[in-house]
Amino acid sequence: MVSWNNLDTLSSYKELADVKPACLTEVMSGDNGAERVKNYSVPMAAGLSYNYASKQVNENVLAALEKLADEAQLADKFKALYNGEVVNTGEKRLVLHHMTRGQLGDAVEADGVDKRTFYKTQQERIAEFANKVHNGEITNAAGEKFTTVVQIGIGGSDLGPRAMYIALENWAKKNNAFKMEAKFISNVDPDDAAAVLASTDVAHSIFVLVSKSGTTLETLTNESFVKDALKKAGLDPSKHMIAVTSETSPLAKSDDYLDAFFMDDYIGGRFSSTSSVGGAVLSLAFGPEVFAEFLDGAAEEDKLSANPDMRKNPEMLDALIGVYERNVLGYPCTAVLPYSQALSRFPAHLQQLDMESNGKSVNRFGEPVTYPTGPVIFGEPGTNGQHSFYQLLHQGTDIVPLQFIGFKNNQLETDVTIQDSTSQQKLCANVAAQIVAFACGKSDENLNKNFKGGRPSSIIIGDKLTPKTLGALLAHFENKIMFQGFVWNINSFDQEGVQLGKVLAKKVLAHDTDGALKVYSDLLNI
Amino acid sequence: MVSWNNLDTLSSYKELADVKPACLTEVMSGDNGAERVKNYSVPMAAGLSYNYASKQVNENVLAALEKLADEAQLADKFKALYNGEVVNTGEKRLVLHHMTRGQLGDAVEADGVDKRTFYKTQQERIAEFANKVHNGEITNAAGEKFTTVVQIGIGGSDLGPRAMYIALENWAKKNNAFKMEAKFISNVDPDDAAAVLASTDVAHSIFVLVSKSGTTLETLTNESFVKDALKKAGLDPSKHMIAVTSETSPLAKSDDYLDAFFMDDYIGGRFSSTSSVGGAVLSLAFGPEVFAEFLDGAAEEDKLSANPDMRKNPEMLDALIGVYERNVLGYPCTAVLPYSQALSRFPAHLQQLDMESNGKSVNRFGEPVTYPTGPVIFGEPGTNGQHSFYQLLHQGTDIVPLQFIGFKNNQLETDVTIQDSTSQQKLCANVAAQIVAFACGKSDENLNKNFKGGRPSSIIIGDKLTPKTLGALLAHFENKIMFQGFVWNINSFDQEGVQLGKVLAKKVLAHDTDGALKVYSDLLNI
Repeated sequence: MVSWNNLDTLSSYKELADVKPACLTEVMSGDNGAERVKNYSVPMAAGLSYNYASKQVNENVLAALEKLADEAQLADKFKALYNGEVVNTGEKRLVLHHMTRGQLGDAVEADGVDKRTFYKTQQERIAEFANKVHNGEITNAAGEKFTTVVQIGIGGSDLGPRAMYIALENWAKKNNAFKMEAKFISNVDPDDAAAVLASTDVAHSIFVLVSKSGTTLETLTNESFVKDALKKAGLDPSKHMIAVTSETSPLAKSDDYLDAFFMDDYIGGRFSSTSSVGGAVLSLAFGPEVFAEFLDGAAEEDKLSANPDMRKNPEMLDALIGVYERNVLGYPCTAVLPYSQALSRFPAHLQQLDMESNGKSVNRFGEPVTYPTGPVIFGEPGTNGQHSFYQLLHQGTDIVPLQFIGFKNNQLETDVTIQDSTSQQKLCANVAAQIVAFACGKSDENLNKNFKGGRPSSIIIGDKLTPKTLGALLAHFENKIMFQGFVWNINSFDQEGVQLGKVLAKKVLAHDTDGALKVYSDLLNI
Repeated sequence: MVSWNNLDTLSSYKELADVKPACLTEVMSGDNGAERVKNYSVPMAAGLSYNYASKQVNENVLAALEKLADEAQLADKFKALYNGEVVNTGEKRLVLHHMTRGQLGDAVEADGVDKRTFYKTQQERIAEFANKVHNGEITNAAGEKFTTVVQIGIGGSDLGPRAMYIALENWAKKNNAFKMEAKFISNVDPDDAAAVLASTDVAHSIFVLVSKSGTTLETLTNESFVKDALKKAGLDPSKHMIAVTSETSPLAKSDDYLDAFFMDDYIGGRFSSTSSVGGAVLSLAFGPEVFAEFLDGAAEEDKLSANPDMRKNPEMLDALIGVYERNVLGYPCTAVLPYSQALSRFPAHLQQLDMESNGKSVNRFGEPVTYPTGPVIFGEPGTNGQHSFYQLLHQGTDIVPLQFIGFKNNQLETDVTIQDSTSQQKLCANVAAQIVAFACGKSDENLNKNFKGGRPSSIIIGDKLTPKTLGALLAHFENKIMFQGFVWNINSFDQEGVQLGKVLAKKVLAHDTDGALKVYSDLLNI
């Protein structure tokens, strides 16, 4: 039986605060540095590894973090979660996104069905549908093949699937797995839908409407936008649209769609990339086999997350180092810096995943917490970021912990050699250089050119970004964030903070406003 | 004569620290709130306005900020800058990006020429070139018109021009000003260039190589990538490329390019959108007249920035409120939230503009400062962000000041009415609702559904995003950041923090490494 306690009531947390952090300029220099980089590494799934040599930890800090992991019962809590306990206490829901990619623990029955069977069935139904689209069994009314898939969704129904699509687009093209181009419409700004539609051959497009509740305002609005465009083109919208929704939603059994595929209340939007939400668009774009590999990578990483030994559990370790940085060292932000153009939108997805999950001020029992919880997350791909905001990271007044990601090989395998090195070598040389520059710094008498160092980072290293490594990478961050929520004793699976804005926006549209809200509405001509 | 002093030596700063901030839940509610929204607004150029009613300021705070503006001699320092003083003390350079869009003060001579004439001449040369491309006087070797322009650049040569292109693409299409599609190659990751080239008709493309020094490694590498692709397609690269560079760079007088257009050392990369760096690609994409309107908007805003009266100077006011939030209230981040899909990459540009300018720990004399300087900047367009990281903004443990941007009308003028409102009305209703939700909050006995409020924001409101409003918007943030640099007594115009990484990356590529750097290099297979 697990017990849920605030971080500041744990004796191991008090001990942690008294342990001195590693001094990076010392421990990362010379032969010690070399040894440290070799030792402070833990294998992940799909050949990835998590290297934390350049974090401000040492054996003392790690020992204290292990105690904290034990006292906070992190492994037991994860076990309770995947075995079907109601971990989302706010909404009184199970949390089952791990089950979309494998059976990690006990069978879990809910709504009268075995949930693994339910998710697997949806995956198979999508696979069958996608195969029929690809082989021409399902076509437009003129009997022509669909060539494009357009996802209509927002937040978790957009950021994750979009980031995953961009991550695998070039890989798929190189590996003969590219079936259809995917596009995305998300914003209620009418220029978003209009611009996507203007550049899309709607007659050969299949639209995926994604809304768990079937009531998301932005998504339903954009659906109407799309239906208008289809009708104007003389097409029957119901022959061009599928729905991804919950079985109880108004979209589930509607004649407006070619078919509907299901998720449920136990899959939070931001954790839905491995469910039907990611499944439909990714299976259509790249084929069901590619989506299955992506799931395998995630499932493999989930297994590592279940290891109670923090030193062998990359997600638990990353989570605890993050808590140390946030609560003991007092750093308010974290930057995610993938050295891979394919991961250009991965930071935006992690921004939602992390900030929506752990940006909370009350614990799981609805009581205020008195310590910082989730940090601000931001990032852009390297080397682009180096020519942008790295100035502040190197020489700003605040320290920002960094999460690098790097791959030995690029996806397209096209490259040029300039000045005796390939572009890929230059890319990798830059990420290696940055880690050491941030950690060790460099003294200069001219303080304007001086680098203090002592700026912590970790790196996840892989051979190549493939469906499987992408799945592992995604699960790494999902589970890291989950563990941090456990440590902070918050509910990482609801998002009550988004409600008030929705309520007030409805009032504005109903012209039911006064005071400041009325004046702002007038200023904006509503 | 201006004198440069650290913020913490100013008596007005000490006074500021003693003034109590406005309590937003009080001042923004009821009729007082309505009055406040009407009063706390200052006109900007091109019909924009800066509304700061929802910032934690009141007459006392504003009076203290006015004193600070005077004591820090902000107006005089801006005057010194645009009249040609060597404000970039680190690199001993003038700072003349304002002059790319107008003559704000005295004539400035440097390098033996009048600088306004120099910038204007480049603008005119680009206009002539672009017109010839558009009317078919300049074509590819087969005599066919160019249809696409591809910018090769990184950092300031990429983020600004790219964000501006995306901002105006739909406007141009709607207003018959769309001449050529623009694409961008920036990352040294070979998959970036390869993917762009794979989707580009290179035979009808003109490439713009942008590098002030002519030595930027990423850019030269990507140039080779492009040249290879052109040669493989049987084309002569020199007939498909132009250069934007300084007159002293190796690219300036090379036969490798159709033509070369110039910038100089007095235009920092991140401030170069209004110089030839933005001028070439934007004039080719939308025509020189559109680029000229963009410059007019910026010039008009610059004039407002020169006003010594803080209450009538939107940039000075925004800057000082930001300093109050950063140094007195202690907020480490700022989010930029445009409710306009067209501004999807504007936050990424501001991230560079702000963090590279003001992420500094030493003052302009090379002495350490003991107060926080530039904050972390991040953002995504609304309403997308609402379904992502707004949870933390509403209910997280840290307060993040917000900068909203909203327009009454959309660019494409296509819209649908759903549930009695258009998409544009929904978009605007959401931004109005968010400001009030953040400021006023809403009590709930269930603390999980409780909103404390008291979270500050400002909004820039405009009629529509056009070339002129975009110019004004860009100049607003450029000048705001400049004023903040003046207040913090730092040099906002160099970027020494990016050097160490470059040096170490070169060592890695030369295999001249040991210790941690060698092991990381091995792990990454370099």
